Amino acid sequence: VAARERPVIGFLTDFGLDGAAAICRGVMLSIARDAQIVDISHTVRKFAIGDGAYLLRSALPWLPVGVHVAVVDPGVGTDRRPIAIRTKRGDVLVGPDNGLLLPAAERLGGVTAAREIANREWLLPDPSATFHGRDVFAPAAARLATGASFEAVGPELDTASLARLELPEASVERGRLATGVMYVDSFGNLRLAGGLVELRAALGEVEPGAGLILEIGAPGAGGRRWEHLRWRRTFGEATAGELLAYEDSAGNIAVAVSNGDAAARLGAGTGARIGIRRA
Amino acid sequence: VAARERPVIGFLTDFGLDGAAAICRGVMLSIARDAQIVDISHTVRKFAIGDGAYLLRSALPWLPVGVHVAVVDPGVGTDRRPIAIRTKRGDVLVGPDNGLLLPAAERLGGVTAAREIANREWLLPDPSATFHGRDVFAPAAARLATGASFEAVGPELDTASLARLELPEASVERGRLATGVMYVDSFGNLRLAGGLVELRAALGEVEPGAGLILEIGAPGAGGRRWEHLRWRRTFGEATAGELLAYEDSAGNIAVAVSNGDAAARLGAGTGARIGIRRA
Amino acid sequence: VAARERPVIGFLTDFGLDGAAAICRGVMLSIARDAQIVDISHTVRKFAIGDGAYLLRSALPWLPVGVHVAVVDPGVGTDRRPIAIRTKRGDVLVGPDNGLLLPAAERLGGVTAAREIANREWLLPDPSATFHGRDVFAPAAARLATGASFEAVGPELDTASLARLELPEASVERGRLATGVMYVDSFGNLRLAGGLVELRAALGEVEPGAGLILEIGAPGAGGRRWEHLRWRRTFGEATAGELLAYEDSAGNIAVAVSNGDAAARLGAGTGARIGIRRA
Repeated sequence: VAARERPVIGFLTDFGLDGAAAICRGVMLSIARDAQIVDISHTVRKFAIGDGAYLLRSALPWLPVGVHVAVVDPGVGTDRRPIAIRTKRGDVLVGPDNGLLLPAAERLGGVTAAREIANREWLLPDPSATFHGRDVFAPAAARLATGASFEAVGPELDTASLARLELPEASVERGRLATGVMYVDSFGNLRLAGGLVELRAALGEVEPGAGLILEIGAPGAGGRRWEHLRWRRTFGEATAGELLAYEDSAGNIAVAVSNGDAAARLGAGTGARIGIRRA
Repeated sequence: VAARERPVIGFLTDFGLDGAAAICRGVMLSIARDAQIVDISHTVRKFAIGDGAYLLRSALPWLPVGVHVAVVDPGVGTDRRPIAIRTKRGDVLVGPDNGLLLPAAERLGGVTAAREIANREWLLPDPSATFHGRDVFAPAAARLATGASFEAVGPELDTASLARLELPEASVERGRLATGVMYVDSFGNLRLAGGLVELRAALGEVEPGAGLILEIGAPGAGGRRWEHLRWRRTFGEATAGELLAYEDSAGNIAVAVSNGDAAARLGAGTGARIGIRRA
Repeated sequence: VAARERPVIGFLTDFGLDGAAAICRGVMLSIARDAQIVDISHTVRKFAIGDGAYLLRSALPWLPVGVHVAVVDPGVGTDRRPIAIRTKRGDVLVGPDNGLLLPAAERLGGVTAAREIANREWLLPDPSATFHGRDVFAPAAARLATGASFEAVGPELDTASLARLELPEASVERGRLATGVMYVDSFGNLRLAGGLVELRAALGEVEPGAGLILEIGAPGAGGRRWEHLRWRRTFGEATAGELLAYEDSAGNIAVAVSNGDAAARLGAGTGARIGIRRA
C-alpha cells in the first residue's frame, strides 16, 4: 500500500494512564502524522529507572526497528542530559541520560553513537522544567521518525560518559547460584538475573521436577528465609499453588507460583537477594 | 487511500500492562506491518478463562471482521492445543483450546472450521514453554492477517473436540429467575446470565420502577442473602446509591448501584448464584 | 504517502480497561476504517465529570485537530442531551451535555457552534439506555471523522444553554492565594486552580527555594491543617521526600512530594480547599 512504511515509535513511561502519555502521543502525531506508536508500558513503577530499563530491554528486540522513546525521569529539569543513542540494529533510543536506555541498546547490538538533544528547533517552545516527555523527548523522537538525521540531534557524546545502572547480577558459587530479582512482572513472577547457563554452571544439569532450595535475603541478614521449590519447564506441570522455578521467555531464571503470585507469597520485590541450590 | 484496507487484529490477554502485550504487538507488526491492532483488554483477571471468554464475546461483534487473538492460558506449554477457528462472519480467532474462543465464535455466527496451529514456518524459532502469546499465537495471527490461507495453519480439527467452558446459565422457575454472575465489570456491575426474555418468562412483564428481590447465594447454603431492588431502564432513573437491576447493553440482566459498585456492596463475584423474584 | 491524512479521534472515558472502550473503538473503526484513534484515558475516576473535564482540557491542545469523543456520563439514558460542539481551532467535541466538554473547548479557542446529536441515521439501530458511548457518541464521532458535515449532526443549540461545571477557582487575597485541588494526577501531585500570575499577585515574586505555608481545608473547618513546603522549579531540586510547590507543565500551581505521593501524604483529593502564603 505504502510508498514508505509507517515509522514505528516504541513508547514507555511511568506516566500512568491519566493523560500525560496521551499528551506526548499528541505531540508526536502532530509532527509525525503517520507514525505507528507502539505503547510498551505506561505503568512502570514511578521513578523506578531499573524497572523501566528492564521492560524496555525486554520489549524492544521484538519491535520493528524504529525510534523508541522512554521516560522514567526523576531528575527531569536538573542537569541530567537528554540523549538520543543509535544502536547497531538501526534503532534510535530517546530519553534521559540516567541509565534507562543502555540495557535495551545492548540487546539491540550495542550503542554505535550518542548525542545530546540540543537542537532548539526540535524542542517545543519554552520547555517546562517538569515535563520533558512532552517538550523534549516526544518532539525529538517524532523528528527522527520523520527521517531527520541523527547528526541534527545535537553534539556528539562520548558513549563512555553515559550514565549506567547497577543491575542485579548472577554469580556462580560452589553448588549455589547467587542472584537477585531484576523485576516483578504483573503475574507476580520474580525475574532473576542469570539464565540456564549460569544455573547449570552452579548446579549441573537440572531436570524438570528436580527439587531446589530458594534462599531469600542476603547471607548474614536476619531476614533470610528458605523455600523448597521444583524446577519446571512450564506452569502447567506444577500443581496449582506450587512454587516453581523455570526458564522464562527471555532466557532468565524466574520464580513463580502456578496460578498464583510469587512476589506476594514470598514477600520479595525488585532488588531482593536470591540464592538457589539443590534440595 | 488504500488499495487494500489495513487488516484488523483484535487482541485480548491477561498479560497486564507491563510489556508482555507490547512484545506480542511488536511480533505482529514485524510480520504484518500495516495491521490495525485493536486492544480489547489486557487486564483480564489472571488465569480467568471465563472472564476472558465473556469479554471477547462482548467485544468482537462490534469490531470489524478480522483476525483476533486471545490469550488467557494457564495451560501454556502443556498439551492443550493452539488453535485457529473460522467463524461464519468471516473472522479467524486464534488462541489456546481451553474454551476461551468459542463463546465469541458463537456470537459471530458459529464455528465453520478449526485447525491446530502447527505450521512450523509460522512459529518463532525455538518457541518457549511459557510465552505462546509471543511465539505461537501472535505470529500465527499476523500471518493470517497478511492474507495467508486458513488451510496453511495446520491440520483440521473436529469442532466437536474443542474444549468448552461451563458458563452460568439462566433457568426459568415458577415466579423466579435462577441465574448467576457471568462477569463483574469495571464499574462493579454484575452481568448475569439470561436476558429480558427469560426474566419475563419467570416474572411476567416488568415495568420500570417495579420492586424485585435479589437472592445471593445458592438455596440451602448458609450464606444466602436477600436484597430489595428496583427494575430500572437506566442508572439515572435511580437515586444515587440505589441498588437496581436493568437490561445491560449486551441484552443481559445486570445488577448495579447507581453511581456506586454493586459487587463491593453485595460481596458477590463471578460465578455467584443469583435468584430474582418479585418483591 | 496519503492522498488524505488519516483523521484523528481523541478518546476519553471512565469505562476502565475491560472492553467497553474497545467496543467503541470497534464501532468507530467499522465506520471510519482509517481513523487514528488516540486514547487519552479510560481510567478517569468513575462518574467524575470534573476529572474527565480536567484531563480532556489538558490533553486536547496537544492533539492534532480532529474529532474527539469523551464519555463520563452518569446521566446516560436520562434527558441530558448528547451533543457535538465545534471549536474555533477546528475540532469537533462529542459527548454528553454535562459540562465534560466545555473546559476543553475553551482551551481550543472557544465554542463556535453546538448541535444536539439527533440524526437517526448516524446512531446504531435500537440504542440502549445505558451505553451511549457505543450507540450514540462513537458512531457520531466516526461519521464526523469521515467528513460528514457538522450541520448533519442535528438541531443547533444555543451555546449558552450548555451545562457547565463548577470548577475550583483561584482568588488572590492579601498575602494569600486561595485555591483548590482541580485534579490529583497518577503521581499523586495536586494540580491546583490558578497559575504563577495569581501566585505572584498574592505573594509577590517567589524565588526557587522560598518557604511557603500550605493550608489544607477551609477556614473555620475543624480539619484545617498546615504544612511547610518550598517553591521549586523542578522535582530534582528538592530532597527526596520533600513537600514542594511548583508551576506544572500546564502553567498551574501544583503540590508534589519529590519521589513520592503528595495526595497520600496530605490526605487531600479533588475539590479540597487549599491556601498558600509565605512562611
